[in-house]
Amino acid sequence: MPARISRRRVRVEFGDCDPAQIAYYPNLIAWIDHSTHHLFESVGFPVRDLQASRGIQVPVVGLNVRFHSPATWGDEIDVDSHIVRWGSKSFDVQHRITNVTTGDAVAEATETRVCVKLDPNHPKKLVSQVVPDDMRLAFARGDAFTTVI
Amino acid sequence: MPARISRRRVRVEFGDCDPAQIAYYPNLIAWIDHSTHHLFESVGFPVRDLQASRGIQVPVVGLNVRFHSPATWGDEIDVDSHIVRWGSKSFDVQHRITNVTTGDAVAEATETRVCVKLDPNHPKKLVSQVVPDDMRLAFARGDAFTTVI
Amino acid sequence: MPARISRRRVRVEFGDCDPAQIAYYPNLIAWIDHSTHHLFESVGFPVRDLQASRGIQVPVVGLNVRFHSPATWGDEIDVDSHIVRWGSKSFDVQHRITNVTTGDAVAEATETRVCVKLDPNHPKKLVSQVVPDDMRLAFARGDAFTTVI
Amino acid sequence: MPARISRRRVRVEFGDCDPAQIAYYPNLIAWIDHSTHHLFESVGFPVRDLQASRGIQVPVVGLNVRFHSPATWGDEIDVDSHIVRWGSKSFDVQHRITNVTTGDAVAEATETRVCVKLDPNHPKKLVSQVVPDDMRLAFARGDAFTTVI
Repeated sequence: MPARISRRRVRVEFGDCDPAQIAYYPNLIAWIDHSTHHLFESVGFPVRDLQASRGIQVPVVGLNVRFHSPATWGDEIDVDSHIVRWGSKSFDVQHRITNVTTGDAVAEATETRVCVKLDPNHPKKLVSQVVPDDMRLAFARGDAFTTVI
Repeated sequence: MPARISRRRVRVEFGDCDPAQIAYYPNLIAWIDHSTHHLFESVGFPVRDLQASRGIQVPVVGLNVRFHSPATWGDEIDVDSHIVRWGSKSFDVQHRITNVTTGDAVAEATETRVCVKLDPNHPKKLVSQVVPDDMRLAFARGDAFTTVI
Repeated sequence: MPARISRRRVRVEFGDCDPAQIAYYPNLIAWIDHSTHHLFESVGFPVRDLQASRGIQVPVVGLNVRFHSPATWGDEIDVDSHIVRWGSKSFDVQHRITNVTTGDAVAEATETRVCVKLDPNHPKKLVSQVVPDDMRLAFARGDAFTTVI
Repeated sequence: MPARISRRRVRVEFGDCDPAQIAYYPNLIAWIDHSTHHLFESVGFPVRDLQASRGIQVPVVGLNVRFHSPATWGDEIDVDSHIVRWGSKSFDVQHRITNVTTGDAVAEATETRVCVKLDPNHPKKLVSQVVPDDMRLAFARGDAFTTVI
């Protein structure tokens, strides 16, 4: 059963590139983060609401990226993202970035994120949370099709 | 009576520069913003505490910049910042950026900032506030010398 | 005769916002810069080609911004940009940013840019250039309509 | 034989943080990249000169990060970087980020970088290069002590 994929197109701008004329690689990481947010929205679970209504945040604890080819200003890239693993308190989001202009693979990345909440007794301390059932279900309902944002 | 000046040194990094090999100009604006925060800290009024204890924020409502010469990666620049105007509900911060490596003037900027607070009856609406007396006094006490952070 | 306007829509992302929950203001400046690049493309004069084929760059020498209201993550904003002044060696680009989600004006900005070229005898030194006729004409041809990118 | 470590201190600014009040994680990646540049400078092989004099670039092809705890605005962090592997055409840079303010480990990262050069017959195509002997030697000479930049 294929997982729900969220696709987000980004135009690489002059200001996104470095003196080597290519997209500065930390910007690719920002686009990956944006895409995770889009993925959550696409199933009706915006991270913003998760924080506002339940105090749950989903910070990144692990990141693994392979860079295959650069993208340069004027190029358009697609970031395709989906959940590849659900743990009890964590999950993995996989991202594939393709250069639409050249057809080349740009990068593949996996983010590991955890569900956390502020400890009511220790402000500034975070405690891990079980992945909410309705969140996991929202993704299950969404599968087998692709959303383009 | 000279105003208190806060000086902050920034090293221009490869990743701060654009394909024209110079510091991408929106990054200079970020360094200006950082320097205003440092200026407030240097007189014992961190913006962070102002928000936490009194709910007062000091957003930028006006920005005027002249760019004189570029800075490039490897260069060190100094951002010198001080208050040039106190209004009843607003104030102006002036910034001079100098390229320490070349001796050239990089830019001059003036930010106009206002004191605001969230409207208790309309979350998301901001209402302007009178500049707190002790904030203004903190800057008065601090004048005639320079802090290097 | 109305000038050619280039419109570019930006979605404000979580990562574009600061701890005050609003778009970090230097990011608005980056979006303004991106929009100038889009404006040039919309009349068939990509800044990239200008640099590659004629060695002409169009750096910003002046920037004036009024911020009217904040944008926050999840909001969509439109950046409308057009040339408001042609000088012999410089020109002004005006930008209006509107929050499409709320209908509010976000900011108005004017960039002053100059045409420059590397001095062949002094690498690293830039010399100002007359605005190329065909560049100015490209904008004249394009007027009276709006391009949405 | 311990490898040469370059240490770089970064103050986390308001503008480096996201709506969750912590350093936006792609900014940590930018600081890692900056630190690799500093490491190269500390042994007398600035990446800038490598590019200018030999046309060799050292782009990132792999990135692996574990995030242990967040850093917030006002915190100071140290990025300690050193080479942990030399391959024939690639090398790994390891980074440890520590929160100086709290004493906590912030993140550990490994970048894999390759030596590449533009293909003279195919502009825009990169060909991998053997790691230059003098580059590797520069790091060998530098070992057993720490440079603080």
